[in-house]
Amino acid sequence: MSSQHLTEYEDASPEVRAVYDDIMQTRKVEQVNNFWKCLAAHPPTLRRTWDSLKEIMAPGALDPLTKELIYVAVSVTNNCPYCIASHTAAARKAGMTDAMFGELQAVVGMANETNRLANGYRIPLDDAFRLD
Amino acid sequence: MSSQHLTEYEDASPEVRAVYDDIMQTRKVEQVNNFWKCLAAHPPTLRRTWDSLKEIMAPGALDPLTKELIYVAVSVTNNCPYCIASHTAAARKAGMTDAMFGELQAVVGMANETNRLANGYRIPLDDAFRLD
Amino acid sequence: MSSQHLTEYEDASPEVRAVYDDIMQTRKVEQVNNFWKCLAAHPPTLRRTWDSLKEIMAPGALDPLTKELIYVAVSVTNNCPYCIASHTAAARKAGMTDAMFGELQAVVGMANETNRLANGYRIPLDDAFRLD
Amino acid sequence: MSSQHLTEYEDASPEVRAVYDDIMQTRKVEQVNNFWKCLAAHPPTLRRTWDSLKEIMAPGALDPLTKELIYVAVSVTNNCPYCIASHTAAARKAGMTDAMFGELQAVVGMANETNRLANGYRIPLDDAFRLD
Amino acid sequence: MSSQHLTEYEDASPEVRAVYDDIMQTRKVEQVNNFWKCLAAHPPTLRRTWDSLKEIMAPGALDPLTKELIYVAVSVTNNCPYCIASHTAAARKAGMTDAMFGELQAVVGMANETNRLANGYRIPLDDAFRLD
Amino acid sequence: MSSQHLTEYEDASPEVRAVYDDIMQTRKVEQVNNFWKCLAAHPPTLRRTWDSLKEIMAPGALDPLTKELIYVAVSVTNNCPYCIASHTAAARKAGMTDAMFGELQAVVGMANETNRLANGYRIPLDDAFRLD
Repeated sequence: MSSQHLTEYEDASPEVRAVYDDIMQTRKVEQVNNFWKCLAAHPPTLRRTWDSLKEIMAPGALDPLTKELIYVAVSVTNNCPYCIASHTAAARKAGMTDAMFGELQAVVGMANETNRLANGYRIPLDDAFRLD
Repeated sequence: MSSQHLTEYEDASPEVRAVYDDIMQTRKVEQVNNFWKCLAAHPPTLRRTWDSLKEIMAPGALDPLTKELIYVAVSVTNNCPYCIASHTAAARKAGMTDAMFGELQAVVGMANETNRLANGYRIPLDDAFRLD
Repeated sequence: MSSQHLTEYEDASPEVRAVYDDIMQTRKVEQVNNFWKCLAAHPPTLRRTWDSLKEIMAPGALDPLTKELIYVAVSVTNNCPYCIASHTAAARKAGMTDAMFGELQAVVGMANETNRLANGYRIPLDDAFRLD
Repeated sequence: MSSQHLTEYEDASPEVRAVYDDIMQTRKVEQVNNFWKCLAAHPPTLRRTWDSLKEIMAPGALDPLTKELIYVAVSVTNNCPYCIASHTAAARKAGMTDAMFGELQAVVGMANETNRLANGYRIPLDDAFRLD
Repeated sequence: MSSQHLTEYEDASPEVRAVYDDIMQTRKVEQVNNFWKCLAAHPPTLRRTWDSLKEIMAPGALDPLTKELIYVAVSVTNNCPYCIASHTAAARKAGMTDAMFGELQAVVGMANETNRLANGYRIPLDDAFRLD
Repeated sequence: MSSQHLTEYEDASPEVRAVYDDIMQTRKVEQVNNFWKCLAAHPPTLRRTWDSLKEIMAPGALDPLTKELIYVAVSVTNNCPYCIASHTAAARKAGMTDAMFGELQAVVGMANETNRLANGYRIPLDDAFRLD
């Protein structure tokens, strides 16, 4: 079995189908993404990843759009093409406008720049930011 | 001059003081952070970094708290201790509660995990996410 | 000469051929991968990289399969598509089963998640882990 | 509450104590690490992270030592000082010798080097490694 | 508007055209790259990014070739395929020979390797390198 | 033996001493850095790393200062505190002025920013940059 094998619903075991069903119901979609069809090659990873994602991305102190923006910010910083594509789409679906997208990328770019300036200049922590 | 030299206001050139003044006025604080005192060693970088940050972090399509959450997400992913400390403080000041902090870290952790699962499984992009 | 130029055996200098011969003999294969054909553009890098890799990946305190699993873990974390593909193939050849692949990815994903939680929460080192 | 707040057992809620108890019992230790004491600030993250880690790091197709070596490899690549320290200790406990440690670091260093050579030379994927 | 939308000169607003004109004049080229045509989707990011890049990459204490080599080194380390391609081309144009390219990649690879050895061995800073 | 164990010259084996001698002679210094004293815990890694570094950092098509600037750029991007400190010192020794240091950091910061903008905007490669 290749690492790219996509398990389709009709070929899935009951255990995998149960996860697919929950994804489709929770997200109100009629198909699961390739991400889940690939993870199905290792059912414990499929189930655990979905359970975690479902819990973490549910509305809470942060709203779903904010969570998707954060997800995109991490994916861009790590340069994960699949996650950039899928979570940019999810952010759009959650309400991200073109203007928000532009500002998101600007903040991500700036943070990556100043992270390196802080490293390169070996900036000592201000007393106000210390924990001890 | 060491890369860690901190330029204090009283020792700063008029060019550097002008930037410090703008930072203090914009942020309504009485001191600039070590980050700026270090960048002052190279005035063009000080000025350009501040001008960019001021423009990018101003309220726009995204509110200041959301921008700070994104900034923290990037800094955590890059593991920049200075920026994690300073932007976590800035996010708190902008209204981040303990519950928001907890959810922010959970999303950041999850995104870093699934970014690697997507890489490792070499997941092919869904047609719905293609740009061409 | 483009950075993607592939030096085939028949066009290679004696110096490059000697490295190719050693790779093919050591690995019992009849062709070297594109990785080596590209590095051949800079013979000192070709030779040094092969000599180092041959020494490091030889059976020792860790067996070849364990070394390939570690190689994949690093390549996934860095998101290097070429190395993910070539070292996943090498790990399969060294005995990695589907179940091992699934557990490898799960550990890599989890480690990437907790690395960020440790950063984000700014967790102080336990005394038991200190070196000084 | 600071992000560095350590929740000690005697101050913990029943929900947090239940996780601490399971960690101590599973690992046969008398104290949980600072990592868990910090995550306790957000109980859902504490519980989910422990449940996932417990499942993933249990003996399976890969033995516990191999899993710890992989964990160290990722933590070194990401440069997470806390996780490098704690998982190097865990690997030692699981049987990592000095010689294994030396070979582990050598493989991690080499993989990081060739990951970049593959990127920089823009090496085209060999047909043998293609998935499609 | 998709995140991949390319704004061509003839469809650009006066604000965007002014940036394109400055890029073409400064670089003595007759077309701007896709990078700029994409950033045009968010004019403030287009303008600020170009203004910063123009200032930073201008000849100064470091010559343009050295700056392009540094740019490639960062892009390879981050594995940004677009920037590796565009800045390798820019470095070639600024005078990078095949031999320089080979040595650049060798240094980048070596630095990535020793960065990880330093992390993994948890090497304490020599007194001579301390700032405090 | 701890991973932080520093092997001093007087306690070193002949094999380790030979490497130390070569480092001191090549660099015209009277002591080796902690980096080498730590790697001495695994003599094959010590020898191989030094042999590679000596060959790669020797004057060639790129001069020693340029190579050190590239080394710093990578170390800052990876946020390796030890290597940032030691290679910034080496670059100073090789002739890096304050102005060069300032421009180096500015280029590194900018490259990290545009790497992420290229990722986030999913910019398609210009035909002129294609290799195939």
